[in-house]
Amino acid sequence: MTISIAVAGASGYAGGEILRLLLAHPAYATGELEIGALTGHSTAGASVGELMAHLPQLRQRRIVETTAENLAGHDVVFLALPHGHSAEIAGQLSPDVLVIDCAADYRLRDADAWQQYYGTQHAGSWPYGIPEMPGHRQAIVQARRVAVAGCFPTAVTTGVLPAVVGELIEPDLSVIAVTGVSGAGKKAAVALLGAETMGSLRAYNPGGKHRHTPEIVQNVREYLAPEAAPKVTFTPVLAPLTRGILATVTAPLLPGVGPEQIRKVYEDFYAQEPFCLVLPEGQQPETQNVVGTNMVHIQAHVDQTAGKLIVTAALDNLCKGTAGGAVQCMNLALGLPETAGLPMAAVAP
Amino acid sequence: MTISIAVAGASGYAGGEILRLLLAHPAYATGELEIGALTGHSTAGASVGELMAHLPQLRQRRIVETTAENLAGHDVVFLALPHGHSAEIAGQLSPDVLVIDCAADYRLRDADAWQQYYGTQHAGSWPYGIPEMPGHRQAIVQARRVAVAGCFPTAVTTGVLPAVVGELIEPDLSVIAVTGVSGAGKKAAVALLGAETMGSLRAYNPGGKHRHTPEIVQNVREYLAPEAAPKVTFTPVLAPLTRGILATVTAPLLPGVGPEQIRKVYEDFYAQEPFCLVLPEGQQPETQNVVGTNMVHIQAHVDQTAGKLIVTAALDNLCKGTAGGAVQCMNLALGLPETAGLPMAAVAP
Amino acid sequence: MTISIAVAGASGYAGGEILRLLLAHPAYATGELEIGALTGHSTAGASVGELMAHLPQLRQRRIVETTAENLAGHDVVFLALPHGHSAEIAGQLSPDVLVIDCAADYRLRDADAWQQYYGTQHAGSWPYGIPEMPGHRQAIVQARRVAVAGCFPTAVTTGVLPAVVGELIEPDLSVIAVTGVSGAGKKAAVALLGAETMGSLRAYNPGGKHRHTPEIVQNVREYLAPEAAPKVTFTPVLAPLTRGILATVTAPLLPGVGPEQIRKVYEDFYAQEPFCLVLPEGQQPETQNVVGTNMVHIQAHVDQTAGKLIVTAALDNLCKGTAGGAVQCMNLALGLPETAGLPMAAVAP
Amino acid sequence: MTISIAVAGASGYAGGEILRLLLAHPAYATGELEIGALTGHSTAGASVGELMAHLPQLRQRRIVETTAENLAGHDVVFLALPHGHSAEIAGQLSPDVLVIDCAADYRLRDADAWQQYYGTQHAGSWPYGIPEMPGHRQAIVQARRVAVAGCFPTAVTTGVLPAVVGELIEPDLSVIAVTGVSGAGKKAAVALLGAETMGSLRAYNPGGKHRHTPEIVQNVREYLAPEAAPKVTFTPVLAPLTRGILATVTAPLLPGVGPEQIRKVYEDFYAQEPFCLVLPEGQQPETQNVVGTNMVHIQAHVDQTAGKLIVTAALDNLCKGTAGGAVQCMNLALGLPETAGLPMAAVAP
Repeated sequence: MTISIAVAGASGYAGGEILRLLLAHPAYATGELEIGALTGHSTAGASVGELMAHLPQLRQRRIVETTAENLAGHDVVFLALPHGHSAEIAGQLSPDVLVIDCAADYRLRDADAWQQYYGTQHAGSWPYGIPEMPGHRQAIVQARRVAVAGCFPTAVTTGVLPAVVGELIEPDLSVIAVTGVSGAGKKAAVALLGAETMGSLRAYNPGGKHRHTPEIVQNVREYLAPEAAPKVTFTPVLAPLTRGILATVTAPLLPGVGPEQIRKVYEDFYAQEPFCLVLPEGQQPETQNVVGTNMVHIQAHVDQTAGKLIVTAALDNLCKGTAGGAVQCMNLALGLPETAGLPMAAVAP
Repeated sequence: MTISIAVAGASGYAGGEILRLLLAHPAYATGELEIGALTGHSTAGASVGELMAHLPQLRQRRIVETTAENLAGHDVVFLALPHGHSAEIAGQLSPDVLVIDCAADYRLRDADAWQQYYGTQHAGSWPYGIPEMPGHRQAIVQARRVAVAGCFPTAVTTGVLPAVVGELIEPDLSVIAVTGVSGAGKKAAVALLGAETMGSLRAYNPGGKHRHTPEIVQNVREYLAPEAAPKVTFTPVLAPLTRGILATVTAPLLPGVGPEQIRKVYEDFYAQEPFCLVLPEGQQPETQNVVGTNMVHIQAHVDQTAGKLIVTAALDNLCKGTAGGAVQCMNLALGLPETAGLPMAAVAP
Repeated sequence: MTISIAVAGASGYAGGEILRLLLAHPAYATGELEIGALTGHSTAGASVGELMAHLPQLRQRRIVETTAENLAGHDVVFLALPHGHSAEIAGQLSPDVLVIDCAADYRLRDADAWQQYYGTQHAGSWPYGIPEMPGHRQAIVQARRVAVAGCFPTAVTTGVLPAVVGELIEPDLSVIAVTGVSGAGKKAAVALLGAETMGSLRAYNPGGKHRHTPEIVQNVREYLAPEAAPKVTFTPVLAPLTRGILATVTAPLLPGVGPEQIRKVYEDFYAQEPFCLVLPEGQQPETQNVVGTNMVHIQAHVDQTAGKLIVTAALDNLCKGTAGGAVQCMNLALGLPETAGLPMAAVAP
Repeated sequence: MTISIAVAGASGYAGGEILRLLLAHPAYATGELEIGALTGHSTAGASVGELMAHLPQLRQRRIVETTAENLAGHDVVFLALPHGHSAEIAGQLSPDVLVIDCAADYRLRDADAWQQYYGTQHAGSWPYGIPEMPGHRQAIVQARRVAVAGCFPTAVTTGVLPAVVGELIEPDLSVIAVTGVSGAGKKAAVALLGAETMGSLRAYNPGGKHRHTPEIVQNVREYLAPEAAPKVTFTPVLAPLTRGILATVTAPLLPGVGPEQIRKVYEDFYAQEPFCLVLPEGQQPETQNVVGTNMVHIQAHVDQTAGKLIVTAALDNLCKGTAGGAVQCMNLALGLPETAGLPMAAVAP
């Protein structure tokens, strides 16, 4: 039986990446998966060939308007829409359909945090799409609705989780995450021009103002005692590359925690995870080594003089950070092999 | 029955890209293909994990010395070695083995041209690895030895071939090809440092001095009358990107040739070719749309005032320009589907 | 006596670069030059600090609306406006004022060529701002109106002029010029986003469709016999760097012309020019070596097999290609030293 | 009277940048400064034109061997040498000569810290070249020996100093500094190739292992009570740009410190400093806005939820971070205006 898939917001960067992954998915090759409606708003009516020449197999296909009717009749709907719009469409889709939302609408469980950071009413919360977080994989397997995690929270959470769960650090995280420019999406803005971003570095939404902050807090808090109050300060930095996030997390080590313990905890934590690779001692995550893949490369360092743990984690913001995470969740919810169609070997250099 | 594959020069950029493609090859997933010896010279003894962290599936494997013994016992041997070294090893491999050489040693049929450009004795010539050149696919299917084409000649030849075969231009080609830095390989040199290449453009080996020049001449001459004497001046330009070639070819139009004829000839010529895409009128090849793929995106323009045809062609120098071309030839020679394991959708943006 | 200078379109890239040069001009340090009105349209009302944080000395200044009134009362007016708008404003400025126009409005002498490429009525022609073109420096010295040359025509013209004037080539030029993204200006457009331009190469306005084509033709024709009909086919290529043009010009050599003659002609032609540097044999122009300067680095190569001259020329599109050329013309017209305030040493690497 | 200047290590990136600044120094234009011996080791014998084509004014000059004899007879000697080599040469120079050392040899006052991080014997300590640090400008004015600060310590120190001196934070700093590739110098290494650095991000020497760590500690400690024990964990991140450092410093706010106080302290602290610019609220430092200049652009943010100060500071690692700092110190020590020859307006975009 064929599973038909629609992609809403197909002509954006996340939508295009979902399509790239589906086209190479083994279940697409066998006809088990098929690609149905591709929707957009400003791009409705245009061909995929005009909009995304990097997807030649679909070049004759047309983008149709993002409406519940156009998305109806599919078994899976990916939503790669701006937040707000995502919830609006989601509300109109049949409960039987598997809906995988790449926007923020259903990520936060705390309505106040939503209100504070997004300024609108909270739409609700869905099973959260980081299967590597203890307890979440099973929820995704049973879900008809999944909220794909944000790109920064995916990097930061997978990077720091072993230390949090293993009770190695105080929950007082200073997070600086350097990101490529595709994270800002395919919208015209002077500040995102090539001339403004090549050859430059700048922070944005610094010091806890970025909307991914409460999502990181939620993920960390989940594994702490109820009375613990994690502190997270998060600042992203824009750098001149297209894809890739290198997140750094600094946190105070708990007394007596040393490098060997850190290493063992990290290696054990991810020993069975196909997409989280703890690098050997001395080797650094490099974003080029994860471009186009669903991997997170992770390293943990102990600064004994300063009494800090410094974790570095690299992923591809469009793949593991968005579309890859989304397809991984789809695989789980459809009962397909979790790793199907998800590259592990990067397009490097 | 399992086909075992060795890669000589596995730790270089071409070798790494061959491995990336093999790991995602459907016949590798089924066990029909297996990856055997990985050889290197300065890197012998090191693990793949240390050298190529972008290939996590192979990270425990070790590079062994590039010797005929280490390469023996495989059904397929890819040679991703410097020219000269390639021929030396090739001479020691069994005639039954499928040998696919990514170096220049066996590309040229003209021993004088070899001598002039390489200054050493000509090793001979093998079936030439651009299946899209009329007459070549069948030769590759039957071959046990294939000489993969150079990255620039692949772009230039596929770009200009319809006009040459279709007798639309004088064989007087001015070729400027802009290339990313991975084409220079993984060797330490001040001129190839990030600090010397980011933010800069420079030509190199200008005006016919580049060794890919006689290969382009040979490919063009193949479809001309014996008495025709093609002129080709070729200059590469180094630009600040990792992967990608954008070749431009300018040639005088023959009298009476107009845009409609050009368009029709180009579209017809490649109508059945899976990897050569003639873009719709008005759309330009962009290297980002072919990164990680085996595609060539091609456009042809008529400058009626100047009486010239200007062709632009984009490919990924490490994929279609080297490793992808090599795997395409392997597929043909092994009787596998020609497109198996060769991405068409790019990692863009 | 103080010379006051206004800059119209001050918040664009060309305007900002004019200001950078003026701030470091020795006559600005002495108070001989002063910076007056800075105008813009969409940016009117904003401070320089908000718009151009790279000019801290002017950060308190405000952009005012681009009107003839705001520009009145200055001794020098730089116009860094879109074509069309430039002529409109220029028509309202006093004939006594030195007006230096960075747009195309007054570059072309041929009204038909203007009409064909710009589709509007021809505004007229002014002394043309490449002082290195024989005969032009004196005209600029005496001018109250100067049309600064286009960035591509400056590179191509200075590159090919010795060969044209020296009668070494047939006037049949194939021009491919690779450019950084700042040439497209500071306007929001998806195709110019960092995500669309980093890591990619693409041609645009190919095959003689770019508006700089008739300007190149005009410059070449000026030194040919009246009956000569130069052919120029011009295609620009966008590359992932901010500043820099590397122009390549290919042309058939006239019979008997060899490398020694080429070298001697080139070196003699520019021996007295401070801003045109013919590099020693074997050394290539690199755009990083001219970033921030008013230099053109030039090299000429003979491809004897193909019978072609290949010239490569590098400049900074915003400096020598626009603002530097403009300040050079200002210096000449004001009787200041031609080289005053114009960097020759680049910000490299 | 003419002051003659020698540059040891002239063909490296720091040496080249010192020369770029000297060539545009107003005292060079008047003949008050002259450029004497240019020394190197592996480059001895080569011309500046071959090695640094971006300095056309000096292209005929030759690099001579780095020896005390070749450096003798100058009034000023800049040492742009690897650490160790710097001290070796410095020991042979006359005490009357103004020696400005860009290496680390004389930066640290703590011999144990030197031994721990460099593993060799401590050469001693000289007046330290950040004039903006309270108390240091006067020492430089009177010095015949100056140790120019490291690029990261310059960014971090100027960024955090107002908060340290103003007693706004606990001295517990988490520093992540993103840097361009020129900081690694002009030496061939695979890890620094364009193909390995474009399109990638990676940390290096993480968690306090980088040699600039004790220098940051020393600078912070200088303004604390003797019993205070500052904690600094420092991790640099390599990003794909040539020039620029964006340093982020996170530190716990002392109780009761709020945004208004922070802003006032920062603005007051640097009100008289020409090269340290505290940006208006809401504006971020961007490295492109300081390229080629001696500026540090600084912003301070309060994360009240996490109780942290986050400072961002941008500078050009080769200019303010090395050569600009060196020329600033030369100006002070020679009694020239401190800002002479030091650009404030950047080559942007």
